[in-house]
Amino acid sequence: MRLILASASPARLGVLRGAGIEPVVRVSGVDEDALTAKLTGATPVELVTALAAAKADAVATGIAAEHPDAVVVGCDSMLHIGGELAGKPGCADVALRRWQAMAGGTGELITGHTVVRLDRGVRTAAASGAQSTVIRFSTPTAEEIGAYVGTGEPLQVAGAFTLDGRGGWFVDGIDGDPSSVIGISLPLTRRLLAEVGVPVVSLWS
Amino acid sequence: MRLILASASPARLGVLRGAGIEPVVRVSGVDEDALTAKLTGATPVELVTALAAAKADAVATGIAAEHPDAVVVGCDSMLHIGGELAGKPGCADVALRRWQAMAGGTGELITGHTVVRLDRGVRTAAASGAQSTVIRFSTPTAEEIGAYVGTGEPLQVAGAFTLDGRGGWFVDGIDGDPSSVIGISLPLTRRLLAEVGVPVVSLWS
Repeated sequence: MRLILASASPARLGVLRGAGIEPVVRVSGVDEDALTAKLTGATPVELVTALAAAKADAVATGIAAEHPDAVVVGCDSMLHIGGELAGKPGCADVALRRWQAMAGGTGELITGHTVVRLDRGVRTAAASGAQSTVIRFSTPTAEEIGAYVGTGEPLQVAGAFTLDGRGGWFVDGIDGDPSSVIGISLPLTRRLLAEVGVPVVSLWS
Repeated sequence: MRLILASASPARLGVLRGAGIEPVVRVSGVDEDALTAKLTGATPVELVTALAAAKADAVATGIAAEHPDAVVVGCDSMLHIGGELAGKPGCADVALRRWQAMAGGTGELITGHTVVRLDRGVRTAAASGAQSTVIRFSTPTAEEIGAYVGTGEPLQVAGAFTLDGRGGWFVDGIDGDPSSVIGISLPLTRRLLAEVGVPVVSLWS
């Protein structure tokens, strides 16, 4: 039984490796924008769960021949800061304004996962779940914000911060699961694996 | 200006490296048991702060000639579970009993840091602080506890768990700073560095 990570995220891969699992990585190619557009009126929890399920389903379909006995894990996360969805800033100006706005405030990360189980290439079970984590941002000085943006790190990450990189200096604390903030919730994934009958320890390398 | 980490802990070194600092590592040789015995009646916060200060002081004294312009960071942590101080289990039987007792419960990690600043080999400033983080443990099955103890990971770590290793599967969440649970609190260290006049970003590699 192999764990298939339906995500290209190096952060998610790093969390799994650190926790004793060497997954097969397979990217779903799901059109997230198109699916999100279809789900108007969905709550954030419904949205991340639907996106995680779509990714896990797509990869499970494509991988069944190559890895007939597998659990496919799909992931999606959304970060809300100041009542808005916080994507990747993309450029330094946007990252700078984000940090000026979120310094001293809080954010909420909503994480959804879906696990699809394959036995002999046939889908035999699936489980989905979501959870929420509060992030409390520090109040960096203008010099610190400038230096952090200057490293380039916050430009390409949702919410303009990382917990396990330089951004960690500027997060006072969280209330929830730290692995979900980095990219994949270990306790939620463990519970979903158990729901489809696969103890997480059976996947440890 | 170099950051000197007054600790042999690979977890602390890993947190600092991940957050953009390559410290000089120097171990203090402070007799923690002897110092703790002297501090009867001290609160946990007073105790971790005193131990962190003793380590930073000892290393600052020894390193001034070699690194005359430096900030020395001393660290100490204590984990309370079930009202008791949780050290390293040392052997599989103790680790197993610990997990049977702490499954589904909470722990409290108290972290103390001291920063000593050296300029031209002279101690010019120092700052100390402490903070607390709550850890909420999952309820692993007997099979999971057995497999986890079997990896050997929990035997040599305080509290019989890690947050960034296989133990992460069995921690539902925390309320506080995740870097302090791994070994060194980035936001507390940043505040203490600022107190001695050294912006953390000036230490980034």
